[in-house]
Amino acid sequence: MRTFEELESAVRSYSRGWPTVFTKAKGYKLWDTDEKEYIDFFAGAGTLNYGHNDNAMQQKMIEYIQSDGIIHSLDMGTTPRKDFLERFKEVILTPRNLDYKIMFPGPTGTNTVESALKIARKVTGRETVISFTNAFHGMTIGSLSVTGNSFKRRGAGIPLHHSVSMPFDNYVDGHDSIVYLERFLEDSGSGVALPAAIILETVQGEGGINAARMDWLKKVEELCKRWDILLIIDDVQAGNGRTGTFFSFEPAGIDPDIVCLSKSIGGIGLPMAITLIKPEHDIWGPGEHNGTFRGNNLAFITAAEALKNWENDEFSKAVQEKGDFLKKAVEMLIEKYPELNGEARGRGLMQGIAIGKEGLASDICAEAFKRGLIVETSGPDDEVVKFLPPLIIDEEGLEKGLQLLEDSIQHVLN
Amino acid sequence: MRTFEELESAVRSYSRGWPTVFTKAKGYKLWDTDEKEYIDFFAGAGTLNYGHNDNAMQQKMIEYIQSDGIIHSLDMGTTPRKDFLERFKEVILTPRNLDYKIMFPGPTGTNTVESALKIARKVTGRETVISFTNAFHGMTIGSLSVTGNSFKRRGAGIPLHHSVSMPFDNYVDGHDSIVYLERFLEDSGSGVALPAAIILETVQGEGGINAARMDWLKKVEELCKRWDILLIIDDVQAGNGRTGTFFSFEPAGIDPDIVCLSKSIGGIGLPMAITLIKPEHDIWGPGEHNGTFRGNNLAFITAAEALKNWENDEFSKAVQEKGDFLKKAVEMLIEKYPELNGEARGRGLMQGIAIGKEGLASDICAEAFKRGLIVETSGPDDEVVKFLPPLIIDEEGLEKGLQLLEDSIQHVLN
Amino acid sequence: MRTFEELESAVRSYSRGWPTVFTKAKGYKLWDTDEKEYIDFFAGAGTLNYGHNDNAMQQKMIEYIQSDGIIHSLDMGTTPRKDFLERFKEVILTPRNLDYKIMFPGPTGTNTVESALKIARKVTGRETVISFTNAFHGMTIGSLSVTGNSFKRRGAGIPLHHSVSMPFDNYVDGHDSIVYLERFLEDSGSGVALPAAIILETVQGEGGINAARMDWLKKVEELCKRWDILLIIDDVQAGNGRTGTFFSFEPAGIDPDIVCLSKSIGGIGLPMAITLIKPEHDIWGPGEHNGTFRGNNLAFITAAEALKNWENDEFSKAVQEKGDFLKKAVEMLIEKYPELNGEARGRGLMQGIAIGKEGLASDICAEAFKRGLIVETSGPDDEVVKFLPPLIIDEEGLEKGLQLLEDSIQHVLN
Amino acid sequence: MRTFEELESAVRSYSRGWPTVFTKAKGYKLWDTDEKEYIDFFAGAGTLNYGHNDNAMQQKMIEYIQSDGIIHSLDMGTTPRKDFLERFKEVILTPRNLDYKIMFPGPTGTNTVESALKIARKVTGRETVISFTNAFHGMTIGSLSVTGNSFKRRGAGIPLHHSVSMPFDNYVDGHDSIVYLERFLEDSGSGVALPAAIILETVQGEGGINAARMDWLKKVEELCKRWDILLIIDDVQAGNGRTGTFFSFEPAGIDPDIVCLSKSIGGIGLPMAITLIKPEHDIWGPGEHNGTFRGNNLAFITAAEALKNWENDEFSKAVQEKGDFLKKAVEMLIEKYPELNGEARGRGLMQGIAIGKEGLASDICAEAFKRGLIVETSGPDDEVVKFLPPLIIDEEGLEKGLQLLEDSIQHVLN
Repeated sequence: MRTFEELESAVRSYSRGWPTVFTKAKGYKLWDTDEKEYIDFFAGAGTLNYGHNDNAMQQKMIEYIQSDGIIHSLDMGTTPRKDFLERFKEVILTPRNLDYKIMFPGPTGTNTVESALKIARKVTGRETVISFTNAFHGMTIGSLSVTGNSFKRRGAGIPLHHSVSMPFDNYVDGHDSIVYLERFLEDSGSGVALPAAIILETVQGEGGINAARMDWLKKVEELCKRWDILLIIDDVQAGNGRTGTFFSFEPAGIDPDIVCLSKSIGGIGLPMAITLIKPEHDIWGPGEHNGTFRGNNLAFITAAEALKNWENDEFSKAVQEKGDFLKKAVEMLIEKYPELNGEARGRGLMQGIAIGKEGLASDICAEAFKRGLIVETSGPDDEVVKFLPPLIIDEEGLEKGLQLLEDSIQHVLN
Repeated sequence: MRTFEELESAVRSYSRGWPTVFTKAKGYKLWDTDEKEYIDFFAGAGTLNYGHNDNAMQQKMIEYIQSDGIIHSLDMGTTPRKDFLERFKEVILTPRNLDYKIMFPGPTGTNTVESALKIARKVTGRETVISFTNAFHGMTIGSLSVTGNSFKRRGAGIPLHHSVSMPFDNYVDGHDSIVYLERFLEDSGSGVALPAAIILETVQGEGGINAARMDWLKKVEELCKRWDILLIIDDVQAGNGRTGTFFSFEPAGIDPDIVCLSKSIGGIGLPMAITLIKPEHDIWGPGEHNGTFRGNNLAFITAAEALKNWENDEFSKAVQEKGDFLKKAVEMLIEKYPELNGEARGRGLMQGIAIGKEGLASDICAEAFKRGLIVETSGPDDEVVKFLPPLIIDEEGLEKGLQLLEDSIQHVLN
Repeated sequence: MRTFEELESAVRSYSRGWPTVFTKAKGYKLWDTDEKEYIDFFAGAGTLNYGHNDNAMQQKMIEYIQSDGIIHSLDMGTTPRKDFLERFKEVILTPRNLDYKIMFPGPTGTNTVESALKIARKVTGRETVISFTNAFHGMTIGSLSVTGNSFKRRGAGIPLHHSVSMPFDNYVDGHDSIVYLERFLEDSGSGVALPAAIILETVQGEGGINAARMDWLKKVEELCKRWDILLIIDDVQAGNGRTGTFFSFEPAGIDPDIVCLSKSIGGIGLPMAITLIKPEHDIWGPGEHNGTFRGNNLAFITAAEALKNWENDEFSKAVQEKGDFLKKAVEMLIEKYPELNGEARGRGLMQGIAIGKEGLASDICAEAFKRGLIVETSGPDDEVVKFLPPLIIDEEGLEKGLQLLEDSIQHVLN
Repeated sequence: MRTFEELESAVRSYSRGWPTVFTKAKGYKLWDTDEKEYIDFFAGAGTLNYGHNDNAMQQKMIEYIQSDGIIHSLDMGTTPRKDFLERFKEVILTPRNLDYKIMFPGPTGTNTVESALKIARKVTGRETVISFTNAFHGMTIGSLSVTGNSFKRRGAGIPLHHSVSMPFDNYVDGHDSIVYLERFLEDSGSGVALPAAIILETVQGEGGINAARMDWLKKVEELCKRWDILLIIDDVQAGNGRTGTFFSFEPAGIDPDIVCLSKSIGGIGLPMAITLIKPEHDIWGPGEHNGTFRGNNLAFITAAEALKNWENDEFSKAVQEKGDFLKKAVEMLIEKYPELNGEARGRGLMQGIAIGKEGLASDICAEAFKRGLIVETSGPDDEVVKFLPPLIIDEEGLEKGLQLLEDSIQHVLN
């Protein structure tokens, strides 16, 4: 660990909470230099939905490398780019009756969010974007402007503008946040300009695993339609099957104008992101948004391979079943350990326990690490223990992880 | 090409100028689906300094994949991360007497710039950053704020703040831009606040291959020291040996506070970026800037391998010799074709011909593509033909490429 | 009227609604060039609380002019400035146990608000200011940033920053806006930075005569104290006795950090404003905020004279009684004319009827003008008929005005 | 003075430099409580061009007050408003072949500047405004954004946006600032957006009495025309005859789109301002910019009276002659006292001596006060002794003042 302490910037974070050097990973497991095994309930913050080192993806990568396939090409036409576009259309968009143009905005979540904000502003000619309390959309200035966390926001070193933060679903007990939002929009004296867009995560991954109700999402969409506001769904963490359907918003029956995808879209963990834009909004000039790594061909190879999981609904059903299993386990833990003052959060394989006692969630995660479970906290005060296992985890893995977690809870409570 | 036209967003750019589908690449050559061969004078806009598909890097990648090495890990400790840190310190920093903490800000150029701006603002408690005319630092809002190009800036859809654009070296004939900068800094009535930082590229890659004189760079550093302003060198495109030395600023004898590296740092073209920060400025809180893909381990593998080129000065010398060769060729072309009204730009293997007739540079590049040469324009009005071959190109490659270029010039002039 | 139409800018407003040329005024009456008499239920939007052309003030002005007293002096020391300062301390501050430094920020309401925002930001080192829906604080960019009206805001031609609009008291039926405000302040993920200040009008004069409950004001003050936020009361329109006490916030028992006064502070209608600042916050550098007309000595003369009304509580009681009388009349009208779908608003001599039918309030005011009553609308959609008679009006005047109003209502409803 | 020290805010400034209480003034003289007489070389920073307490203006005011004329009326139609509009058109606009709509933006300099910036942004749909180094346009946030002084700017407590500061005429020796401005405008990579407007003072009153050359002004106007940028002349201090012509820009033969007037426009020192707008740009909505004191009728009375001075060219010629006299005196002083390292600045009766030794200018002004001369410093470092006598001063007054000044210089130099 000395190398990291001495050579790396003080900004490093995960290597502090999990102070070891990892060497190997497969499926839902990791190993470190001491060959200690870890169960992964973190999945690269949702980047490894398909688990570590899927055999088929590995094989495709190796073949591509061996064939001298182009690794980097900016946004030149290449075979893997073409194949990915066609597969995504065929496997994801067409069966869901969705019509989007696919944009490669650069390979990270914040790139896709920045591109979404830009095009929404261009399309509407407006500047304000409404985001929600405890939203997390990224760390570059555009995305940070629509992010809620004050520590991250202050990190900007400049005031963040052109955004208005509105209460997310269930923000204040007994207050319907939709009513507030509607009132601010309809009142010409509200001090909030008609926005270009509303951006939201259906489940707030960093903000505390807050899952919006489907009905709330539907109402947000209605407000957007009524006032000609673009609806942007940031599905970077909740998408790619994390909640049980490919897009997290499918159960709500909404039809966003723009969708942001990254993290698991690349399949094996290589940097990749796409922005989906309704054709009528795709009014970009060529190169109006660009970036060097919007052509990561190796990622296109694994991304296309990952889409196999969506050719039928088996994968999706399995995730939902595992989500139900996890939900029951979470509820059981909350009931069994009332000292946690716990609250169940989330849906699908994106769940958490909000713990009503300061510092406890962090202690549990630290103890879990010692016992061989990788699990992190979430929420503005790190008050939520967050479960984000690879979607390919089996029942045994879930049980084993949950057992390690329960052991850690018991240890910390004593 | 239909796939790209139908499925991809209108923002796509290179697949328009080079309308073919590429399949394979090695060294300084690419091939398309028709097996047509192309000489690469573009190198992924400076991402492929070590050429396409270096054998040793390919081998290392395959071995790593086959060993189930961790592909993605956010910023957890991993063996490739450790190895890269140690190699970079040993091969690059120590021999140059440079003392920097290494930050992984996310895998793209704009990520490293955004992180540099943040830390400079945090360190100084100031907000303004001075950038230069025709600078290009990236497309996310923070980086775009210090970028000159008005088409890109308008793409933001919001006004861009906290930055002041000053004239780059040689901006106005007969006016010394340093005098102007100094006057604005020293006059308390100038309307320009004392900045947190000055950010610059020593050679402006997108802005027209404008190379600052070493003396000018030295004077900028002096002004920074006098007023306690942080100096940020954005070496994303000009670094990694592009101008003949690892860092483009080495011949100026300056010692920047922060250095941004990306593009070729990953060796083979995988997304990767680092930010170098003087230890006294590394006052980040853990996770104050973060991002999912700041742990691209496959890139660390190839990045470490690429550093082999810097173990002695052979590689560096070879680049400088090739740069001299290219410079002579460029001057010859300018002399031979006075209709171009040409002006030689740049240094090392980052050169260009500014062409004094509207539209001509684009025509030449389009014709070159037909003849099998990948070369693009640069500058605010696409008025510069820009040469950015892989550094590993040999004399034969250079000559062949230059011959295709000359043929294209002749064709276009007729 | 031709002169105004031809020579004056299209921005003129009142000369449109009241298309005549006024020549003379006394007490609560005005006369135009046709010697038509008007009852004034407008009082210069609260500038003429002491009525038109008070005899004693006129006399003082004439004497001062005849003595060659200094009319303009920037903020040099002058006798009238000295006298006003002492009188204000003696008659207003001391009896109310208030301790404020008195600042002359320039002679208008927006000047005092701009100065309040500046000093609050300087004291706290923070940038955000929280204002409320339907607030009106002025038309220069700083004040406009904390103003709610979208038509006025768009007039800025630039995005307005550093402010967050929160729901005023009773903004959404059944939702307690204090709970919402508190939640945003306490949640570190709310997206709203800890503000420098909260600015509010206790009765929103332009925003629809929305009167905050005393209990709500008290709670806002508590939140300010808890988080070390400065509380700014903009008493430009509601102050100077308009609601029955000199400061509108007196019944709430709060102790603001900064108070903005203008309009009637000058007594007879001459431009004047002051900013009251708790001594511990008065950390201005000399001239850090300045302005040519912060020394309007003629206004100091009449301002000092006006303070006579506050030497005992007779004036105050009379206003409260007239306020009660007006309230009953308003309620009677609402009951008698259910077609108005009316709602009583306001307190003291700052009242209104919100009318639940689009356009009706404007029609009533237009008709009233024809009948000799000057009364204007308020609210984001001009939906409130607003009563702002001079405080010195007598019962006869009130009754006469109310009769003209009722005639107008009847006429318009038929 | 104790009253001011104890009761007034620390922001007070002139009562510090001139620590006495003034009681009376006439023409170019003031008297304090000790009946000490002062010569006025300050004229309320240009507000008292017609001197203190002009007899005719006093008479008109008294008559108006005695007739119960309306003092305040917002922007209702009144006789004095009508008379002023017609007189201004007849005496000022028509003879100069100028066609402007007259706007009453509120009664201060910063009000007229804020209104000018708003309408320029509305007309062009652009946001950036170019201002110049050492400009002073006012203290509210919009005006402060185009002001150069860093102490005043920092007082905002927030970053100031939407403005770009360009070098004023003669800013850097040997560099033609017009060439810079032109280069920034024509280069699409300059980082400076096409502005809505360029705003400037022809003589910078607060910034150091920097007088632009007529040729430079002409070139600025040409650039504005070429790029369809609105030209705003802030003639608040230099207008109303201060430089010898009614508008300071008349000798340049330019035709600004918008002109800002305040200070002496009211004649006797009462708060008043107007904004002149080319009819084609007068696209305001009614009330889009408003303000309580845009109808100061007492000021309209004196303003109309003051226009008498412009019925023929006698007044103008006299100012120019006195300006020439002052210029010679200034040059003589500079020559006679080489220790001042002095530089003559300004034109008309707006002149100054820039003194090349820190602190000396302030010392001279302090000494002058003791000797009975009111004169202040100007410039970013208070390095200029600034002469701004009332325009009605006679030769005797000028000589007397200059003698007191020379005595002060001698005293300070010894």
